[in-house]
Amino acid sequence: MKKGYIQVYTGNGKGKTTAALGITLRSLCAGNKVFFGQFMKGQDYSELKAPTYFKNLTMEQFGNPAFINGKPSQDDIDRARKGLERMKEVLESAEYDMVVFDEINTTLFFHLLEVEDVMAVLDLKPEKTEVILTGRYAPQEIIDRADLVTEMKEIKHYYNAGVEARLGIEN
Amino acid sequence: MKKGYIQVYTGNGKGKTTAALGITLRSLCAGNKVFFGQFMKGQDYSELKAPTYFKNLTMEQFGNPAFINGKPSQDDIDRARKGLERMKEVLESAEYDMVVFDEINTTLFFHLLEVEDVMAVLDLKPEKTEVILTGRYAPQEIIDRADLVTEMKEIKHYYNAGVEARLGIEN
Repeated sequence: MKKGYIQVYTGNGKGKTTAALGITLRSLCAGNKVFFGQFMKGQDYSELKAPTYFKNLTMEQFGNPAFINGKPSQDDIDRARKGLERMKEVLESAEYDMVVFDEINTTLFFHLLEVEDVMAVLDLKPEKTEVILTGRYAPQEIIDRADLVTEMKEIKHYYNAGVEARLGIEN
Repeated sequence: MKKGYIQVYTGNGKGKTTAALGITLRSLCAGNKVFFGQFMKGQDYSELKAPTYFKNLTMEQFGNPAFINGKPSQDDIDRARKGLERMKEVLESAEYDMVVFDEINTTLFFHLLEVEDVMAVLDLKPEKTEVILTGRYAPQEIIDRADLVTEMKEIKHYYNAGVEARLGIEN
């Protein structure tokens, strides 16, 4: 039986969620079934249309339409917890070859979730399932637990030159 | 009119081609037209099936089925040059919203192409087109030219623990 690993994409550079989308695309093209959960996000990203192209892909968002600015609200915390509950069901179902926890590291950084609770859900990962964790500020516990960790490091970014997020590129 | 930028994904970590695939998926979901050219690669990657899901996506490979091991052959050089010619046509056609030069940095590292020739092709980029360049060892000229540069840094990799490349994950 195939063995799935835990991959982490962290760091301050661009390409973390994007890499998760890329590995999702590759997995779908190989005929696999993928669940893509987006924590912290409730905005209308282009990628949310991806399931219309792939029947094997499920995408769900667990965040607010607005970004967290300053102190997270109780609603932010409740949504993250509900999201984690949902991810627990997803892993327990053992239905998916790949499960993405997009921005999970960021929920930990903002204390929306506790790292022990996330680790307890990761314990439920079926042997075959590949798990992808994204978001800057991955805590040491997550890094220790992962099989593969890539840090995306910003060398140069046009945001610094005043470019706004663009449809089909950043969202 | 929208403005396209030049993005570079480089470094020794996993996720460069994967990020290029992810941004391709996002762009396609936004209704854009994408050309994805793979230098150095001729292997049967899962992602080559992606155009069967998206009519707006063209993927072409410009490499040999075998990886370069040691000194590149004349055939490796010829294929890379043909690939660059093709990318020139692609940019000149002004047909695409996004054009990916996958592993272009690696062709420069192996001296399959000269950096001046690649820069001359990048000069043909239509204003609207987003260009994505991937591969480790991006030379300084490419970094200087790019609007956004992300370095993928390997923090931990299961290859080091003896895991082989897997279908739908690495290929």
